[in-house]
Order: sequence, then structure tokens, then C-alpha cells
Amino acid sequence: MVEVLDVFSSAYSFQEEDIRGKTVVMIDVLRASSTMATALYNGAKGVIPVGDMDDASKISHNLDSMSFLLSGEKDGIKIDGYDLGNSPLEHTPESVKDKTIILNTTNGTKAIKRSGLAKEIIIGSFLNLTSIIDHLKQLDEEVVLVCAGWRGRLSIEDLLCAGNIIYEVYSGQLPKDAKDGARVAFGLFEKFGDDIENIIKSSNYAVRLEGIVSDDDISYCCQRSIMQVLPVLKEGIITDLNGKEK
Amino acid sequence: MVEVLDVFSSAYSFQEEDIRGKTVVMIDVLRASSTMATALYNGAKGVIPVGDMDDASKISHNLDSMSFLLSGEKDGIKIDGYDLGNSPLEHTPESVKDKTIILNTTNGTKAIKRSGLAKEIIIGSFLNLTSIIDHLKQLDEEVVLVCAGWRGRLSIEDLLCAGNIIYEVYSGQLPKDAKDGARVAFGLFEKFGDDIENIIKSSNYAVRLEGIVSDDDISYCCQRSIMQVLPVLKEGIITDLNGKEK
Repeated sequence: MVEVLDVFSSAYSFQEEDIRGKTVVMIDVLRASSTMATALYNGAKGVIPVGDMDDASKISHNLDSMSFLLSGEKDGIKIDGYDLGNSPLEHTPESVKDKTIILNTTNGTKAIKRSGLAKEIIIGSFLNLTSIIDHLKQLDEEVVLVCAGWRGRLSIEDLLCAGNIIYEVYSGQLPKDAKDGARVAFGLFEKFGDDIENIIKSSNYAVRLEGIVSDDDISYCCQRSIMQVLPVLKEGIITDLNGKEK
Repeated sequence: MVEVLDVFSSAYSFQEEDIRGKTVVMIDVLRASSTMATALYNGAKGVIPVGDMDDASKISHNLDSMSFLLSGEKDGIKIDGYDLGNSPLEHTPESVKDKTIILNTTNGTKAIKRSGLAKEIIIGSFLNLTSIIDHLKQLDEEVVLVCAGWRGRLSIEDLLCAGNIIYEVYSGQLPKDAKDGARVAFGLFEKFGDDIENIIKSSNYAVRLEGIVSDDDISYCCQRSIMQVLPVLKEGIITDLNGKEK
């Protein structure tokens, strides 16, 4: 049976050694995880997460120019010269079908890099909750949920999503020996689970990027289980392990 | 009026620049903050927090050997050659009266050092909640609550204590523009505030140090507002700003 060992509230809140050989679910609700899930759901061949513009351009030089799109933001705004921003709503079937997306995203990439010793890294968001939960329930592994957070701080939307995953994996009953991080995420979800969109609309992220990131974007990312997609990172590229069952 | 800007869940969860010029409450419920408060309440002249044995011995060499005590633990056990461990219960009036305590404590000291740009650093615990809250309510300042956590992770007991402080400062009504960290701590306290001792007895700390740190120690640290003491750090030494009104 799967065991959710802990929830880490940011990319800086754990030692890399702590996740060696474990399955990691990386959660960056606003917006990297949601964008990755959406791009794959809408037909992208894969998503390559990168941490800065240098990495993005290095990778893009090795690809056929018709085969990829550069997506990314700096402080919520599309990077100059990029094809798309970091909005999931821009990653429509028309724009992403059969393309590889090079996604430039700071906190999500940091969380992925710091999870380098993991056995497997899955990308989690509210959008693909059911796929994540169904997958975890089938595992007989130790799982750690890694919230991306922001510059080392916790982000309430990531913790809520982690809490939702634990809640469903354990059918609403937190194990008695749960770790502090898991207990906090679970408790938070029990408290605010009915009001996720409102809580997230007053989150640090929403306030910080008010007028830059649209309300529609945030509302979109708060929808639960609207797509069956299981984004898994292998050799630097994230693909949909669920295949094309849509 | 005082404004509680945020709660940081560990010493690694903020940028030092973020607290420049602000008042910081440093919270390390198990056990540094509780031990500091208790030592001062029981008549210690001051507490000097240090991060390792080297620092402790350097400082002690400059002091008259009768004037100080070395307190500290490694993995919950009293350090060889030290006068006391890190248990508040060892810091009795008989042992600490008129002494300066050199307290060797990893996470608490890290949190204090990372708060170096603060205007003022106050030490908060459940034991001296009322003193903290009364003091904060009188301020017309921006306040940040810094939880010590453990090796970068959140500790549920520190977050609960932070939540309790915010709850009282704002009379149970979290401001609408509260930051994520404050909202998480506040929500956690609303959820678990009636059951603090039980929650803390199943915390990472309690489980990790079971059989080493006594149940009595943990129960002691869960008591709310049993002492009027306002430990404030000035020039490397923590003294009681409340004076001797006991």
C-alpha cells in the first residue's frame, strides 16, 4: 500500500537525501503544474521544464524549430520572444498539439531539480487530481508531496492541493503517525476544502500578480479533476503516462 | 496599530532582507523558546543563544566561571560537560538564579541569526503568550513571526503558536489581506487550538525524540500563558523586558 510520508512546503524545506528513491508529486498550482497538465492534455508531446532563459535557449537550439514552443513568464508576464506565457489557457489544442513545450518556470523547476534523487516525479495540480490519486493508490511505495512554494515560502494553494491528495488517498482519515507537513496540509484542506477558489483568490500569488494574471486563469487552476492526465518526468521531459485516454 | 505581516514556517523560508527593520517574534516551542522564557522567569540574568559548541566555548571563556551555565543538547541529549540540557524543567530558580545561560540550540539560533536585520527580536512560546500579545498590541509596527522549524521543515507546534498569537492580536478575525503563511497558521490554530497538547504529542519532534525528551517536558511547553516574561534579544543577549514583575 502507498504511504504518503510527508508534505514539504517549499523547494527549500527538505534535504535532497530525504527523497532518495521515493516517488515525488511536485505541486505548483499557480501555474506551472496546471500549465503542464493542460499542455499534455491538449496534445503536447512533452513538456521540458527549465529554470532560466539560458537553459531554455540551449535546449531549443537542439530541436527542430517547428517541433517546439517556448513558454514562460517573468513575474507573471510572457517573456519577450517566447511563443506563449505561463498561462494554461494559452496552451490550447490548436497551439500545442504535437509540440514539445519548453516551459520556463522558476519555483516549479527548482522543486523538480531538488527532487533529483526521487525514483519518479509526477506533476500534480487540482486539474488532474483524480489521475494522481488513482495512480498513488495503485502504488506500493513511499510518496512525498513537494510543494513548489515561492522563494522558499509556503504557498497556500500548493498546500491545499497536497492536503486534498492526502485526504483522498487516505479516504479522509489521516494516519496517526502522519508527519507535521502532512498534518498541516490535511488540516488545511479539511478547513478550507469547500472554499478553495476563494482562498486561492486571496493568496499571495493572486494579490502579487493582480492585473497581470487574469482571474480566469486562477479560476481555471482551481477546478478539480477536469482532466485525466498523469504527467511524469523521465530524462528531463514530462509526458502523459495516461496516454491519450481522453 | 500593530500589523502582523506574515508567518515564516522555518529559518529557511524567508529572505533576510524581508524582515529588515521589522519586529520579529522567534518561535521554537520545543524547546529553545520555552527554555529561554523559563530561565528568565526563574531569575537568570540573560540567555545567550549560540549555534554550536565552538561558539559556546568561545563565549564562556570570556565570562567568570561562576557567572554562567552552559545549557544545550545534541539530538535531545545533554551535551557532555554542559551544566544543563535544553529542558526548561532543568532551568529551575535554584540552578539559574543570577546566572547567564549560554544556550546551544540549532534551529532556534539559526532563526535568530537569519533575523539579524530585524529591529527587535522577541522570543515567543506558549508559556509567555500573554506577554507577547500584550506587547505586540501596544506596538505601532510591522511584525513578522519566524518559526524555527527543523532543518528547513515546518514544525506544527511552532505554527500553532504563531497562529495563536495572530488569533489573539486580531481578536479572532484574520485580516482579509493576510499573507499565506499567516493564513495557514491562523487556520491551523482555529482547527487544532483546543487540542494543542495532543497534536504536539504526536508531532515530528515528539516522535523523533520519544524516550529521550520526557512527556513532562512536552506537556510543560504546551501550557499557555503561565508566566509573564518578555524575552528580547539585544546585542547578543536575551533578557526579560518585563523586568521582575512576577
